[in-house]
Amino acid sequence: MGRMKVLNSPTIRRMPCYLHQLLRLRLEGHSHVSTTDLARDMDIELIVVRKDIALTGATGRRRIGYEINELIDKIKDYLGWSEMMSATLLGVGSLGSAILGYDEFNLYGLRIESVFDSDAEKIGKVIRSHEVYDISSIKQRLGYSPPDIAIICVPAANAQEVAELLVEVGIKFIWNFSNITLKVPAGVVVQREVIAGGLAMLAVKRKHYKCGNFKNIE
Amino acid sequence: MGRMKVLNSPTIRRMPCYLHQLLRLRLEGHSHVSTTDLARDMDIELIVVRKDIALTGATGRRRIGYEINELIDKIKDYLGWSEMMSATLLGVGSLGSAILGYDEFNLYGLRIESVFDSDAEKIGKVIRSHEVYDISSIKQRLGYSPPDIAIICVPAANAQEVAELLVEVGIKFIWNFSNITLKVPAGVVVQREVIAGGLAMLAVKRKHYKCGNFKNIE
Repeated sequence: MGRMKVLNSPTIRRMPCYLHQLLRLRLEGHSHVSTTDLARDMDIELIVVRKDIALTGATGRRRIGYEINELIDKIKDYLGWSEMMSATLLGVGSLGSAILGYDEFNLYGLRIESVFDSDAEKIGKVIRSHEVYDISSIKQRLGYSPPDIAIICVPAANAQEVAELLVEVGIKFIWNFSNITLKVPAGVVVQREVIAGGLAMLAVKRKHYKCGNFKNIE
Repeated sequence: MGRMKVLNSPTIRRMPCYLHQLLRLRLEGHSHVSTTDLARDMDIELIVVRKDIALTGATGRRRIGYEINELIDKIKDYLGWSEMMSATLLGVGSLGSAILGYDEFNLYGLRIESVFDSDAEKIGKVIRSHEVYDISSIKQRLGYSPPDIAIICVPAANAQEVAELLVEVGIKFIWNFSNITLKVPAGVVVQREVIAGGLAMLAVKRKHYKCGNFKNIE
């Protein structure tokens, strides 16, 4: 069975922000950065930045800080983003299109290789440089060599059916943007993306802000 | 100063999922639900569900469970969603359109009342029942009675400039979907939505899954 780990999601969710900031600093010609600078520029508490960075295993030096290249590599290792992940995207409505247009996924090791939809008006069209395939051809197209992950952007009413197709195709990791709990067999991992989660965070901050007893939320 | 609180973000982020599930159960004619049912149907560990629900202050009864109506109210209170929040949306590209089309926000107490863009091709058009206004008219349109929150969906390059306009208009809570850290004055709260955060979660699950030592991530 191996050792079980419970991982901390706020830390994991912050990692792409650090990566983004570090890549920007590198583009600007910087070679080193301190946690103090990261905390200030990213508006995150210093103690949080220090804990997060420590988890990646990167080692900084007094007065000099962290080597940016090393820190980028450590974060990518931590996230398993050192190797590329291939992906297929299901559903190119407005959300699917937004995800297709999100250039930064490349930086994060994600390569969307195919796009499927069931809408006859979309099938065969090219959306953001991707030809849209008929969802009914998915097994034939992906069955021999399934991509690492699938991104579900179809309406909630179709999501379970699409998830079952993905399981048949042999996909083990599903990023689910539809607002339902997918039923999948053991061994298939679903990451449910709840857009309203961020709204919940903002609403709670607002509530506590009004009460005057708001410090921070992690 | 009042008492300071550090709130737990994974719990807060799960609350809309509970709400969604409870509203569905109520629509199906159920009056009560147990944490065991919620855990099974939502694929969340029972101990996590119990802790989350306990935080809302709802009280369940042995063998009967929680009254769904009461639990919905408690979760809405917890999130500060009992009263509606008014919102303005900035940028109606594909992501902005997806957010405008997200019907469930109504359930979550969010009412998008105005939409702005700087693209001459969009200004004056009606997108998902909202007339798109010129961003340059924002102070004149919202200045007298600013909405509770603003949702930034403009490209990263324009986000800081838009945030400054929002601050001038008097908006105190910003939900930021652009991938940059906004600089805002003290007293303005920004919730940064990092789309890649979910990808980071999935990638870490995948990495630990491959190592065989993956239990769970909260």
